Amino acid sequence: MLTTEARQKILAENEAAAAELRERFARAGTLVVDLISSPGSGKTALLEATARKLAGSLRIACIVGDIATERDADRLRAAGLPSRQITTGGACHLEARNVRDALAAARFGPLDILFIENVGNLVCPASFALGEDFKIVLLSVTEGHDKPFKYPGIFSRASVALITKSDLLPYVAFDVERVRGEITTLRPNARVLLTSVVDEKGLESWCDLLRSALGEKRGVVATA
Amino acid sequence: MLTTEARQKILAENEAAAAELRERFARAGTLVVDLISSPGSGKTALLEATARKLAGSLRIACIVGDIATERDADRLRAAGLPSRQITTGGACHLEARNVRDALAAARFGPLDILFIENVGNLVCPASFALGEDFKIVLLSVTEGHDKPFKYPGIFSRASVALITKSDLLPYVAFDVERVRGEITTLRPNARVLLTSVVDEKGLESWCDLLRSALGEKRGVVATA
Repeated sequence: MLTTEARQKILAENEAAAAELRERFARAGTLVVDLISSPGSGKTALLEATARKLAGSLRIACIVGDIATERDADRLRAAGLPSRQITTGGACHLEARNVRDALAAARFGPLDILFIENVGNLVCPASFALGEDFKIVLLSVTEGHDKPFKYPGIFSRASVALITKSDLLPYVAFDVERVRGEITTLRPNARVLLTSVVDEKGLESWCDLLRSALGEKRGVVATA
Repeated sequence: MLTTEARQKILAENEAAAAELRERFARAGTLVVDLISSPGSGKTALLEATARKLAGSLRIACIVGDIATERDADRLRAAGLPSRQITTGGACHLEARNVRDALAAARFGPLDILFIENVGNLVCPASFALGEDFKIVLLSVTEGHDKPFKYPGIFSRASVALITKSDLLPYVAFDVERVRGEITTLRPNARVLLTSVVDEKGLESWCDLLRSALGEKRGVVATA
């Protein structure tokens, strides 16, 4: 077991690197979102669909973390989203220095929105700031409606929660209102959206949310 | 980031505690299996179904790890499986000392099979021995067929892989043979079973696997 001191040192080092990234993204006016979920909740599928909707009007790119393989970056590039894969080689989450190094290697150019697709893990990534404007948690309807209270770390830190794969609701026992209740108990002002990349449910609201967060960020930067 | 030395020290301490447990379980003739998967792949549902099939003929119990809540232990006890919840309070995996402490507190009495339901996390639990005879990885068909190569740590360490929620196969794109191929590339002798707790597919084979592993363990102990 990691001692509390060792853990605090790792988090403090990460926080310093994240603060540098945050300042840099603020100067650039780039909205940065960190997507976190279990493996297979649909992060990559959501980003593929998002790219199809936004790539014509906004400059977007993605940094994607996985234990192994370039599979997700390959899928995202095929969907028209410039992407840089970080293979962590065993590490269970991304840290701010991974993002800094990936940005240096990728040379994306000026961006409106940078997506960070974290390693598939509902636990560890929650604790690490990456310079993002906000964290987004995804929970697919096939994972069961008991999850928010079982994983309070991420559900209290994410200001946006996407309930994904809503097209599968007819085939599983999943109480959307119960999940919404648990999420807003953990984070009262959370935005909760029901989405599906199969029938496109909720995708327009999701893109509106991104556009308005980008507008707010630029407004703040402009008047600062 | 944890230094390599710090990580090796944690793993070495865990290995020592796991070796003690392994010896104790060998003396008792108790088969111990460590179930690992993402959140929502169906570990608790599998154990509920397993309890219904085995509780009349074998002495079984469960230690279940979660970040927060007693939800899983409550479900398992309701299914007739004596269970002890470990709430890790943030830690993303179980360690051998957690199992030792839970056993001391639970006082299960003599057991044929002890199930350890690990924290929902496909990454971190793979590295920690808990004194088990083998690790079992669960992957539900809704998580996508690209997962074994993306999470090679657990798929190479688990000698049994259960592909769960097979009743949902008609509604998702999931290539069972591709998954079977990736799993056996990572671990050539892995047993791969397709299961569902909804239509009970594969559950009899799963229980047979447990019964025969128990028989083998007792055979080995008896002739030692």
